[in-house]
Parts: sequence; C-alpha cells; structure tokens
Amino acid sequence: MQASFTPKDPDYARRVAASFARQGFMAHLGAVLERVEPGLVEIGLDAADHLSQQHGYFHAGGTIAIADSAAGYAALSLFPAGSGILTSELKINLLNPASGPRLVARGAVVKPGRTLTICRGDVYGGEGAATHVATGLFTMMRLEGLDD
Amino acid sequence: MQASFTPKDPDYARRVAASFARQGFMAHLGAVLERVEPGLVEIGLDAADHLSQQHGYFHAGGTIAIADSAAGYAALSLFPAGSGILTSELKINLLNPASGPRLVARGAVVKPGRTLTICRGDVYGGEGAATHVATGLFTMMRLEGLDD
Amino acid sequence: MQASFTPKDPDYARRVAASFARQGFMAHLGAVLERVEPGLVEIGLDAADHLSQQHGYFHAGGTIAIADSAAGYAALSLFPAGSGILTSELKINLLNPASGPRLVARGAVVKPGRTLTICRGDVYGGEGAATHVATGLFTMMRLEGLDD
Amino acid sequence: MQASFTPKDPDYARRVAASFARQGFMAHLGAVLERVEPGLVEIGLDAADHLSQQHGYFHAGGTIAIADSAAGYAALSLFPAGSGILTSELKINLLNPASGPRLVARGAVVKPGRTLTICRGDVYGGEGAATHVATGLFTMMRLEGLDD
Repeated sequence: MQASFTPKDPDYARRVAASFARQGFMAHLGAVLERVEPGLVEIGLDAADHLSQQHGYFHAGGTIAIADSAAGYAALSLFPAGSGILTSELKINLLNPASGPRLVARGAVVKPGRTLTICRGDVYGGEGAATHVATGLFTMMRLEGLDD
Repeated sequence: MQASFTPKDPDYARRVAASFARQGFMAHLGAVLERVEPGLVEIGLDAADHLSQQHGYFHAGGTIAIADSAAGYAALSLFPAGSGILTSELKINLLNPASGPRLVARGAVVKPGRTLTICRGDVYGGEGAATHVATGLFTMMRLEGLDD
Repeated sequence: MQASFTPKDPDYARRVAASFARQGFMAHLGAVLERVEPGLVEIGLDAADHLSQQHGYFHAGGTIAIADSAAGYAALSLFPAGSGILTSELKINLLNPASGPRLVARGAVVKPGRTLTICRGDVYGGEGAATHVATGLFTMMRLEGLDD
Repeated sequence: MQASFTPKDPDYARRVAASFARQGFMAHLGAVLERVEPGLVEIGLDAADHLSQQHGYFHAGGTIAIADSAAGYAALSLFPAGSGILTSELKINLLNPASGPRLVARGAVVKPGRTLTICRGDVYGGEGAATHVATGLFTMMRLEGLDD
C-alpha cells in the first residue's frame, strides 16, 4: 500500500539523522530515530514520568511531537539537498490511550510535491506496539536554500 | 467575541490547577498555568534549548502541547465535578515561526457539550507575545466518573 | 491493511442503502452508492458541469461531500440497529486536481467506538480512478434511538 | 478582532464575483455571494430539499462547500491580479445541526502569505442565522499565472 519513492539525494539518511540530532526537543523527550527509508521514518519513545499526562498515560503533546517529527523527516528524505522543512499544519485523531512501555511513530509520504508534501503519521503503543494510538495527516513545506 | 460561560462547579479553578500539577509533561517542558476563567485558560512557556527544533525555534511539538493543554483545561473548567477529559482530536495551523522569549497559549471553548466540547487554541510568541504563532481546533471528550 | 469488522446488525447493507436514498443532497449531486461492506463503503460520482469549480475541475465541496458520506456510512454499517449518525468533524487534504470522468470515494473505519467512530476517506479520480485526489480523517458520532 | 487588510488589486471585488459566477457547483446549490471585503467574504444558502441529508438538515457537504468557497474567496481578495487559488486542505467542526431557513458562511483571512494563506470559515444557521453551525480552518494556495 505504501508507494515506493526514489530519493533525490542519495545521502538522504545521513541528512535526516543530522537534522534529528539538532532537535533539542526530541532529545529532551528521549525520542530515538529508528528507521529511515525514502518517504518512511520511524521514531521510538520509551514511557517515562516526564512524558505523562494527569492519568499516567503519555501526554498527547509527546505523542504528537514524535508523529510530527516522523512525518517531517519522511518528507525531508525525498527532498533534494539544500532544502529545509517546516510543518505547515497537522491534524491528529487520538484513537486509544497512549500507554507504554513504548510508543513508535511512523511517518509516511502520501503525496510528494515541490512545495507541499502530504504525509500520514501513525503512532502505536501498548505491549508490542500493537495498539493503534493515533493517526494523523500532515502538510510539510519545503524551504529552499535552508539546509535542514 | 468570546462567549461568557457559567461554570457547573464553582471550584473549577482549583480542579484545573490540581490536574495541571499532575501533568509530568507540562512540568518537564517548563509550562506554567497563568490564567483560568470559565471556558478560557492560558499557559506560558519560556524558550529553552530543550524545546528547540533544528533551526532554534520552538519545536511544533511543544507549541502544540501547550495549545492542547490550554484547550483541554478550558473545556474542563466548564465540566461538573467528577469529570475527566481526553483530547479526541486536534488540528493546528502553524502560522509563523515560534520564537521566544516566550510562548503564550490561549484555549477557549467554542461550543460546550455534554459529551464533546469544541475549543479553539491560539499560540502567540515573539516580542510581547505579539506574533500569532499557531491557531487550532480541538475536540475534547468528557469522561464521567473519572475525576481529572 | 484494512481490518475486518463484524457488523452488529446483519441487515446493515439495507439500512445503509435506505439512509443513502433519503439524502436529497446525494441525489442532487448524482452520487451513487456502489459498495457496502462492514466498515467499508464506496460512492461514485460522474463529472458534470453542475459539479465544477471555476477551472472546470470538481469543486472541493462535491469531492468532500462524497468522502463524508462514504466515511459516515462505513461507520453506520457497524452500528447496531436503531442508531443514527452525525459527522462531528472532518479534515481533508486535496492532493491532486479532481478531474473526471468519475470520482470514487472510499470510506473505511479506522477505529470503531460506542460513541465515536474514526474513519478514513479517500477519493480517487482521473482515468480509471487511478489518481489519489483527496485523503481525509472523519469523526463520526453515534446517536441512540434515532434510526438513520 | 478581524485584522484589516489592504488588497493588492483594487479590482478585487469584481475578480471575486467573476470567479464565483464560473463555479457551476455554487449555482447548482443555489449559493449567493453576499459580501466581499478585503480578506472577508460571505456566502448565503437557502434551505431546499436538494441540500438535505437523511434527517432533513443541511447535508454537511453543502455546509462545507459554502464555507470552503467563502474562505477561498477571502484569500483571493488579497491576491495580486493574475493569481489563481486552490484549497490545499481544510478541517471543519460541525457544532450544531444545520437548519434553515438559511445558512450564511463567513470566510476570513487569519494569515495572508505569498504561497499559503490560512483562513477561518464559520457557518451560521437557524432563525436569524444566530446559531453557530460550523467552524473550520482552511489552507489556501496561490497559483501564479492562472487568473481565477
């Protein structure tokens, strides 16, 4: 079902990893970049007290943050070198309580474009990451001349 | 323009503050609850390295997290006692780069309901919090018998 | 990828068709109910001058209308008898210009629920309906005691 | 609360009206362009059997169609001459049943931009159009060299 994409920059995986490493927020959460393919990125996040909402589940803010980064890097993986990225907008439905031990967010490009790239982002949690925790749609904007 | 609402629970402000204090994630970000009125809540967040994305602005995840909490507590302020709250879905447009020194998120109830409450959430940043950084719509779900 | 669902009402297909037939708006557009399975519904729509926007493509309003109905009936197909349905909210990304000769909208349940059911809705157009025209997420609300 | 905008093309109102007149879909619904100011457009729609869903209210598809057109023309009113417009994505919350005798959709620019313009769209219905029926957010894309 996932279309296969050809990256414009063969060095895409290194670029994604380097940009991810510069995101202080991802480090602060404890998020880990786990998979980078053309148009597909996964990010993992272990449960921790500092990620919780008032009932002990993951706060939606953390769930959405890793979905947003996964979707953004899925888009970036298809950009030519020398391109930056910005989330223009996102929408997410929270389907089930986000419980641990671990969340995995998967971002996937639905429609690449010169200016706008549309992505899906899905987050899985619970034992074996078998529970569909969230599903969303993201519009990513490419910025020229701003290496990400 | 903001409709005025009558809270069902006169103790609403204390309930909101107590729930906010239990959100490990808000503390971890450094977010501060600043204003609680019936159907209207504001949350502030100072810029910090641990909140940044790769270009030094606030990561969208942090911006969205405080918007989501502000919208959720705006809804909770109108619930009767003994009600919990859950974000069902949200959509947010990022309008301008989120720069410091400080973000302020304002959540406001658009349409209260027995089960679903629809809220707006707006985030302001830049000097004097004069820049409109993000605007969003949120569907909040009331859970009975689960004190928040 | 599509989960398989067991309908609560064996008569679901007849109920969906009867409700569709009462939608004056679908008839006015010329939309046709083409496929009804548990949690999955397809609606077709032939191109016509009365469906166009200013450049001759399908107006987004028509594209969204059939996506919304397909998603809503996908949800309704899983409801017990004596349930009505209401769209609570939707979000849709328009991926490609919606050209004829024909649009096909496919609604699919992502997460069924007692009160809220989350669905995807995708619209395809162009020759052989091979172009992905739109993708969206829908929150459908079940109303008890209001037969649809 | 509505920011005031200066149109780039003094002839904006004529351009909006001419584009609206080419939308076969708006005519088919019976929608009427009622107000055009810089960054603000209103469209009216009288109740009719052909606009109904299965319970006799306006079908969400019609409600959304006029909100989308109002938001799009609000954006177009600020574009320079020789610009076309496309809805990139929208999200809408349906707040109350959309009943007649008449709906009024108001589109308003939140953040103008060279490529993307973000708008709000609100729909009112019921007696005196006093009921808030829907509220949404829209991303409109400007196309150069395609007069709308």
